Amino acid sequence: MPDRSAATAGLFDHVLARGAVRSTVNDEAWVRAMLRVEAALALSEARAGLIPTEAAEAIATLCDTVRLSVPVLAEAAANSGNPVVPLVDALRSAAPPSVAEYVHRGATSQDILDTAAMVLARDALGVVLDDLKGVQDAAADLARRHRDTVMAGRTLLKQALPTTFGLKAASWMLGLHLASARVAASRMALPIQFGGAAGTWAGLDGRGWKVAGELARELGLDNPTLPWHTMRVPIADLAMGLGCAAGVIGKIARDITLLAQDEVAEVAEGQPGGSSAMPHKRNAVAAVSALAGAAQAPGLVATLLAAMVQEHERAAGAWHAEWRPLRELLVATGSAASWLRASLSGLVIAPEAMAANVAALQKKLGDDPATVDVGEAAQLVDRALRHREVNE
Amino acid sequence: MPDRSAATAGLFDHVLARGAVRSTVNDEAWVRAMLRVEAALALSEARAGLIPTEAAEAIATLCDTVRLSVPVLAEAAANSGNPVVPLVDALRSAAPPSVAEYVHRGATSQDILDTAAMVLARDALGVVLDDLKGVQDAAADLARRHRDTVMAGRTLLKQALPTTFGLKAASWMLGLHLASARVAASRMALPIQFGGAAGTWAGLDGRGWKVAGELARELGLDNPTLPWHTMRVPIADLAMGLGCAAGVIGKIARDITLLAQDEVAEVAEGQPGGSSAMPHKRNAVAAVSALAGAAQAPGLVATLLAAMVQEHERAAGAWHAEWRPLRELLVATGSAASWLRASLSGLVIAPEAMAANVAALQKKLGDDPATVDVGEAAQLVDRALRHREVNE
Amino acid sequence: MPDRSAATAGLFDHVLARGAVRSTVNDEAWVRAMLRVEAALALSEARAGLIPTEAAEAIATLCDTVRLSVPVLAEAAANSGNPVVPLVDALRSAAPPSVAEYVHRGATSQDILDTAAMVLARDALGVVLDDLKGVQDAAADLARRHRDTVMAGRTLLKQALPTTFGLKAASWMLGLHLASARVAASRMALPIQFGGAAGTWAGLDGRGWKVAGELARELGLDNPTLPWHTMRVPIADLAMGLGCAAGVIGKIARDITLLAQDEVAEVAEGQPGGSSAMPHKRNAVAAVSALAGAAQAPGLVATLLAAMVQEHERAAGAWHAEWRPLRELLVATGSAASWLRASLSGLVIAPEAMAANVAALQKKLGDDPATVDVGEAAQLVDRALRHREVNE
Amino acid sequence: MPDRSAATAGLFDHVLARGAVRSTVNDEAWVRAMLRVEAALALSEARAGLIPTEAAEAIATLCDTVRLSVPVLAEAAANSGNPVVPLVDALRSAAPPSVAEYVHRGATSQDILDTAAMVLARDALGVVLDDLKGVQDAAADLARRHRDTVMAGRTLLKQALPTTFGLKAASWMLGLHLASARVAASRMALPIQFGGAAGTWAGLDGRGWKVAGELARELGLDNPTLPWHTMRVPIADLAMGLGCAAGVIGKIARDITLLAQDEVAEVAEGQPGGSSAMPHKRNAVAAVSALAGAAQAPGLVATLLAAMVQEHERAAGAWHAEWRPLRELLVATGSAASWLRASLSGLVIAPEAMAANVAALQKKLGDDPATVDVGEAAQLVDRALRHREVNE
Repeated sequence: MPDRSAATAGLFDHVLARGAVRSTVNDEAWVRAMLRVEAALALSEARAGLIPTEAAEAIATLCDTVRLSVPVLAEAAANSGNPVVPLVDALRSAAPPSVAEYVHRGATSQDILDTAAMVLARDALGVVLDDLKGVQDAAADLARRHRDTVMAGRTLLKQALPTTFGLKAASWMLGLHLASARVAASRMALPIQFGGAAGTWAGLDGRGWKVAGELARELGLDNPTLPWHTMRVPIADLAMGLGCAAGVIGKIARDITLLAQDEVAEVAEGQPGGSSAMPHKRNAVAAVSALAGAAQAPGLVATLLAAMVQEHERAAGAWHAEWRPLRELLVATGSAASWLRASLSGLVIAPEAMAANVAALQKKLGDDPATVDVGEAAQLVDRALRHREVNE
Repeated sequence: MPDRSAATAGLFDHVLARGAVRSTVNDEAWVRAMLRVEAALALSEARAGLIPTEAAEAIATLCDTVRLSVPVLAEAAANSGNPVVPLVDALRSAAPPSVAEYVHRGATSQDILDTAAMVLARDALGVVLDDLKGVQDAAADLARRHRDTVMAGRTLLKQALPTTFGLKAASWMLGLHLASARVAASRMALPIQFGGAAGTWAGLDGRGWKVAGELARELGLDNPTLPWHTMRVPIADLAMGLGCAAGVIGKIARDITLLAQDEVAEVAEGQPGGSSAMPHKRNAVAAVSALAGAAQAPGLVATLLAAMVQEHERAAGAWHAEWRPLRELLVATGSAASWLRASLSGLVIAPEAMAANVAALQKKLGDDPATVDVGEAAQLVDRALRHREVNE
Repeated sequence: MPDRSAATAGLFDHVLARGAVRSTVNDEAWVRAMLRVEAALALSEARAGLIPTEAAEAIATLCDTVRLSVPVLAEAAANSGNPVVPLVDALRSAAPPSVAEYVHRGATSQDILDTAAMVLARDALGVVLDDLKGVQDAAADLARRHRDTVMAGRTLLKQALPTTFGLKAASWMLGLHLASARVAASRMALPIQFGGAAGTWAGLDGRGWKVAGELARELGLDNPTLPWHTMRVPIADLAMGLGCAAGVIGKIARDITLLAQDEVAEVAEGQPGGSSAMPHKRNAVAAVSALAGAAQAPGLVATLLAAMVQEHERAAGAWHAEWRPLRELLVATGSAASWLRASLSGLVIAPEAMAANVAALQKKLGDDPATVDVGEAAQLVDRALRHREVNE
Repeated sequence: MPDRSAATAGLFDHVLARGAVRSTVNDEAWVRAMLRVEAALALSEARAGLIPTEAAEAIATLCDTVRLSVPVLAEAAANSGNPVVPLVDALRSAAPPSVAEYVHRGATSQDILDTAAMVLARDALGVVLDDLKGVQDAAADLARRHRDTVMAGRTLLKQALPTTFGLKAASWMLGLHLASARVAASRMALPIQFGGAAGTWAGLDGRGWKVAGELARELGLDNPTLPWHTMRVPIADLAMGLGCAAGVIGKIARDITLLAQDEVAEVAEGQPGGSSAMPHKRNAVAAVSALAGAAQAPGLVATLLAAMVQEHERAAGAWHAEWRPLRELLVATGSAASWLRASLSGLVIAPEAMAANVAALQKKLGDDPATVDVGEAAQLVDRALRHREVNE
């Protein structure tokens, strides 16, 4: 299956779904991940002595080579409510007769789809974390370079007391660092899903435990204590890490758009966006687009949390209700991170404008313009930089 | 531009984006709508005496025939933050030199994108309303046929007192009818957006008012009192109608899944979904999928309402933050309506199961099994049916 | 029951629950409203010939004079899940023996609580609408006075093209006007709830219809086609009107905080808030507090919409889930409206600062400083003012 | 200040704000916590050599003994936008003249309010965790006792394959255990807030670091790397743990209400709620109330996440926007946990009803009624119990 992501960029994708994260969760990636899980399941069941090794290898090869049409799977999914049923049908049809019966042995659709989602989430979060690291690097660089650049601290959108741009950038960096740690923790803990139709490992000759262990190892995912078909803590973990990251990104992007106002003019984006009608305008398009992405997160997190109320052993709707918001949350947060990286990496700082604004503030304060009290701002910058170095 | 929607159905689209609504808001529809708005703008400006009629007609013809690549527009959109800038560039390049200057005259990107969104919303809501009408018809039919079919009323998920299935169906119908009225009202009021870069009709030789009037007439949209670039009441109206409809759909679909439980068995879907692993299962897949769609709405509405806080004359992110949730809300609600129509249209009622459950309830109540008090349920059914007839 | 609202203002109430709306929905108001509904029910049932007139009048008198302890009701509510059961018990205990049996005749707890909520909502929305009208008046005044005051239009937080402060204020006014119309419409349509335990009017000797009509008239509420115990369109209507109003308020308050920045300095609040540590600071506390209130709305609306999915004839949790967010939404939006009224009513405009910023913009644009093109801004102001006059 | 919480229980508090958590975050608790923070600040500053020890001790004594009126503080809070300013004024007025200047030295209002919020959150989360532990104990007990009690597994609300009630209860327990771990982790990491007006430790003679360390030790809170006035990761952490817990609680409570349906009748609450009108009804009021509490969480979490976008060094509204939802989220989740504990602790299991439903399922499946395949359900129960023991 060729990656069509470049050719199929949606109309708003370069604004709202920037960067590599999009292709990690597109339809092709989903199909690939489901096939990978079916393959890993077969191999694990062979290792557990449940199915013949040759059958498992045939299935794995088939999963690796089969070409499935997304629209065909999509249409057939309507009958059963999910795309795994037609995918398994297609595999069984394509497999040699002696092998077909071993495809998807003892598994339920949700085992495959949930585990595939975890595989995708790992890839997607990898991209997100890389961009978050890039933003941190940029912020750390700004913090170092402007460790002593005085600027006005602003509270309730009014000039308050002096601070430094280095401290502001260090705070950005630290916030991103903390949020990244949460995202990384949720990525480390991504579990397989394997339980069978009722979550009991029925029909597996008492080898469910062994199969689960092998499957987790094969896929490099965590082996959970119990199947979690309707106990959606792993989804909540993902939602929370991403929701926190989006909040931090939004805070920083808001600061940038405010500092870039013509009347403040303390920063400018390196590649500001043009306006067809107004050539004089130099919009902070990257920060604006980061804000647009970050603004998606709270509603998506709420939808995922609300969907945790899942009935009995498989939910009547709440499981299906997760698919879109989980994908969207990964993409929106990833896009916001990618945009913020672009914004911060090329950010142009105007220390003279900062100085002028501080001077105006000092005048209001009646302070001596020769001395500016920024407290222990420089030490705080150092402390934040050290924190990141130590904890990385 | 051929409609690629059938060929490009996403992996989950037949479950989560069922029905015709999807193709009314896909990328091709967006591009078509933006071109239609540019054409209408040129024609309106000609009628207002602002640009030559021949230029306007050339632009209209161009908009009708030009073929634009979504991925190319998408990529170029990243520079300016929206796809209108590259679309206008493409039109100007493709137009005869003497005409190019009249393309997009006096308009701003948001004028085009917002108005295109209203054009799309009209199409999409048309589909949604048609499905909502179909569900109402099905519910009305059930209400009529089962006007006197006694069943257990249930409160807090416990049997309470007898009611009729007719009254339950009539309540479903009425709820849908009221929600539809709200959706239809928001559809009737969809306004053009036209104001130019600062919302002042600058550069239009004092003919902004006339252009706006012509544009509204040309597109069949409402002519608002003021440009609403950052005063997003029309978006809130859309969100609210759809959010209400989704809530009603969810309520009905939840009832169906509960009534379809094996232990209750009072209804069954006509085309229940199968399970690959469990041939005995007859899932209420349509109601389940309706629930999945309806569950998307609250989070999306919240995102749209939160995005109403837009700065000055054009928002730094909050406008862009609307595009995805507005599209998703139309699709999710439309999908839910389409699924519920499928569920209700073929719903199989089991009056004998209802009777048996009522008998068990009466026994608990110590009531005379020969008489069942359902109050004025039948009159309430008639009242609801009449209400719909009168108000349709 | 003395109104304790002044004495019991919560710690954050003057910031987050400003104005008269708080006391319209506090616990005392709830108890009063429930008693009023029980009284109206008795009177209506007497008029319908269902219970003796003397009994009804005794009940009405009792409801008017009885003193019930909120904490006692609250504690007893835990057993049944709502405070109506102990309230009815208290009424029956306090009533003469010959009257007790006529209390709450044929009603269910939800009939009383929902109808009381509608009574409260009418009062609360009255306060909210009054404040919204006050803000509109203030905005209209600003629009008139500054019809020709030139200022910089700003898009994506960058100076774009000139506009007028009059047009900005007119847009604020119009947005509030449109939102108010939605709130007022939901207020006009507030319905009684009356259906009895299963929503069938059982046990009312066929007089349910008559009782409902009398009850609606007695309370001045709408008489709905059907009981709406689990079809929560009226709640959605309330949520939507308030959500829209909160969004408009937030937009305006955001503009004010941005215009009040020291570096922009185009407006200032008449009674800016002080800072204990920084006497030079003049915070736009009213606009800030309006933003804090408005920010509550989207999440509350989402909770109310999600709670529309209610099972059968009485929900197992979703109904109870409405009580807090409905009250909070009324209070938060009312508080925001009250704060915005305070902010706009005393807003000090600095035309000279506006002029200076426009001059800087014109310099960037290379425009002739002698002429500023604000298009048809003045006519748009007139149009908006006229719209409000005509539609008020 | 006497604890008025019992006497002031709100009308809905026993349903929606059950248990001890309410009094940990009421107004009196807030005032106490703010006073405690001011006291701790003074003592810490004395230890850091910044203010005289006697002054600090006088302040600490004053904070311990002063009686402040909530309504008075509340009203004065309107001027500055928060209640710390009047609280500090009151302390300074009440302090001996030589001491007054040392009150609140170098701190900003947000330092006090945020730190007080962390102190409150610690108390509140302690209560929540205790209830969550109680529910786990009850679930573990059920899992052990019903390790081999066969029941129908249900997917999409239809009977699927057999499972055991033990496994269902073990899954409940494990979900609660995992959610509790997240709540406990956020509780362990609660940080002080201390930075001064611009977050720079200005005016502290270079002793900010030392004061911060002492303050954290004094209060038993974490000492963060930087002040986090506008970098709200700690709030997100709180929101996430509670949101996850609420989701798990909702899932379990939903299961209970479904199992308690008359037609299923596999469980009943030990103290079911009565209905005034329907004495035969035995409602699962505890589970229903748990659902009502849990349903509040997603919208509140969304509001808190959206409020992370805070401007510069102090937000213009987004900080204030946290106060209500944070308190509500603590109370709603705590209430839900307390209700679920009540529900699960007394839950009556009906193995014979479970057996009868399984027999009906087996008949449909065509299975041999003598053998029921529940796979490795018993081992999974053991595994979950062991997991909790090891990780507690």
